[in-house]
Amino acid sequence: MSGVPRVEASQAERPLFFGVDVGGTGIKIGLVDNQGRSVERTRIDTWEERGPADAVTRVRRAMDELLQKVAVGWPEVAAVGLGTPGTMDIPRGLILAPPNLPHWRNFPIRDALSDACGKPVWFANDANAAAYGEYWVGSGRDHPSMIMLTLGTGVGGGIIIEGMSVDGRHSFGSECGHIIVDSRDDARLCAWGGGRGELEAYASATAVVARTKELLEAGRESSLGRRIAREELTALMVAEEANAGDPLALEIIDETARWLGIGIVTLVHTIDPGLVVLGGAMDFGGEQAPAGRRFLEGVRQEFRRRAFDVVAHSTQIEFAQLGSDAGYIGAAGIARAGWLKTAGRSPGDRLADAPGMT
Amino acid sequence: MSGVPRVEASQAERPLFFGVDVGGTGIKIGLVDNQGRSVERTRIDTWEERGPADAVTRVRRAMDELLQKVAVGWPEVAAVGLGTPGTMDIPRGLILAPPNLPHWRNFPIRDALSDACGKPVWFANDANAAAYGEYWVGSGRDHPSMIMLTLGTGVGGGIIIEGMSVDGRHSFGSECGHIIVDSRDDARLCAWGGGRGELEAYASATAVVARTKELLEAGRESSLGRRIAREELTALMVAEEANAGDPLALEIIDETARWLGIGIVTLVHTIDPGLVVLGGAMDFGGEQAPAGRRFLEGVRQEFRRRAFDVVAHSTQIEFAQLGSDAGYIGAAGIARAGWLKTAGRSPGDRLADAPGMT
Repeated sequence: MSGVPRVEASQAERPLFFGVDVGGTGIKIGLVDNQGRSVERTRIDTWEERGPADAVTRVRRAMDELLQKVAVGWPEVAAVGLGTPGTMDIPRGLILAPPNLPHWRNFPIRDALSDACGKPVWFANDANAAAYGEYWVGSGRDHPSMIMLTLGTGVGGGIIIEGMSVDGRHSFGSECGHIIVDSRDDARLCAWGGGRGELEAYASATAVVARTKELLEAGRESSLGRRIAREELTALMVAEEANAGDPLALEIIDETARWLGIGIVTLVHTIDPGLVVLGGAMDFGGEQAPAGRRFLEGVRQEFRRRAFDVVAHSTQIEFAQLGSDAGYIGAAGIARAGWLKTAGRSPGDRLADAPGMT
Repeated sequence: MSGVPRVEASQAERPLFFGVDVGGTGIKIGLVDNQGRSVERTRIDTWEERGPADAVTRVRRAMDELLQKVAVGWPEVAAVGLGTPGTMDIPRGLILAPPNLPHWRNFPIRDALSDACGKPVWFANDANAAAYGEYWVGSGRDHPSMIMLTLGTGVGGGIIIEGMSVDGRHSFGSECGHIIVDSRDDARLCAWGGGRGELEAYASATAVVARTKELLEAGRESSLGRRIAREELTALMVAEEANAGDPLALEIIDETARWLGIGIVTLVHTIDPGLVVLGGAMDFGGEQAPAGRRFLEGVRQEFRRRAFDVVAHSTQIEFAQLGSDAGYIGAAGIARAGWLKTAGRSPGDRLADAPGMT
């Protein structure tokens, strides 16, 4: 969280905004100031099976505790931003059928949270919210447009063009994990949705684990073979063994980078954003680790090898800066942009418009 | 040109706009009214090797003749829209290095045309201009967002999101012909740019001809084999033989549709536009021909088979309506949107913003 801009409550620029980032196991809630700095944050369990109404009540309680902790009153909070995993109906404020929230189907979460807080709520896809956070105060803060890929269990996507998030007509815009990178009949299947040959099946932690297991089961020699006798295989473990020089782990990283590079060529030839940001936990250790740096360099090489000259060397590909804070910061930023537009006020910076584009 | 809205000069809503659509062999110039109706149009040769300054002079002369023909004066023309093939630098108004305009490199065409006409000129990629034309008064006129693929010698792309064209940071946005649909090492190469496995190498007229020749040379039986003894093979010829029931021609159409469907899945999962429009001459005869209808149905089937449920059946895939007039009409529309914004005037319709997004 070293890259997250922070500020004391007393120094925070008013108004403040809450950002809420809902995941399958946890909900992050953060108070963010008018410049995108994190004042305070907390995390509660999702307790998915208790249903969304219960979670909304607990989110409100957590917000009260958080405000009390930093001695801020609700009148200083202008609006709330809410990010949830898709599928969803953003204009109507509905969760539809997210695979990791099976008991939350067709729930009007935007209005429920608004009623609970007494504040207007802006609603976004979780990956688009994370992209907006990086755009506002992270890796993208000097760029008018960017694409973010969130590499985790799956691959999330967020596209920001001149401050506006590409939400799509059916709230299915920016689903960059589901672009097709492998059109062969025997291409890998996505865990979510079951699509064949989609980026998520090649560049997620799930994919890394599956591919590594395949090679180990095929009899390939690796230090990972000894470890999985005792522990469950993870992408982090692949990174660790790659750092120690294990050839199989290095091969997996190179292969994953190659697929991701192919996907990024397609996305850049479609959007030409100037910047592509790689976020999420599946970063092989990121900038700090040899494996992470090798991964990033591999992505860049495959991209440059295949992309058109005019974008090959002028498009930056970087790791994200906000870590898992990107989601709530971005949700708060989306709320801020929407609130400013509704209030008919100019934000005094480049974030002039409400961020949702359908 | 049956789908092109037309109006008599006396009935045309003022102000008027010129649209100019520059191609490798011809330049189309059209006078368009404030509602997107074509008042009059003409075509001049590009005469590429004479260079761009000569062409600009002749465009101005053609505009004068066109205005004279319909008894309209220059004061009734508010602005000019100009579409050219990429690569280009839209913010600076430069043609960079289009493969079909080798003598026009690095030419400041926007300002040259503005000087020649004494009018402000808005500059766009030709495929984006065509998409904007379809968006304004063609297949997309009831949609806030759309993607258009122009199938011809190559595959051009245009993406419109809420009235704004995705131009990109390096004027390389919406280059949908260059998304990767085949990541195999031996995938087909693009004629332009030399990229491997890009949509253009599978869904252009060039690709159809190349693939048909491959199969004929491999000894496949076909009525096309007899025809190419006398004539040069074209995509139109493949459509004709498909209409007559030739199995090889039908197979080529199905294969082309399948690749295009794969590409459209990727584009829709990225943008979720609600509408995808197929334009350009490489339509196997379009709605009027059995081959064209089979092609469109094949594209839709592959798309529905692979796309996420939430977009699979709610996304329309249709042929374009404006034919080769889309380019100048769209260029005029882009000029109109930009002119209205510059003038600080509300257009009184959904096209409120200047269309370029970088």
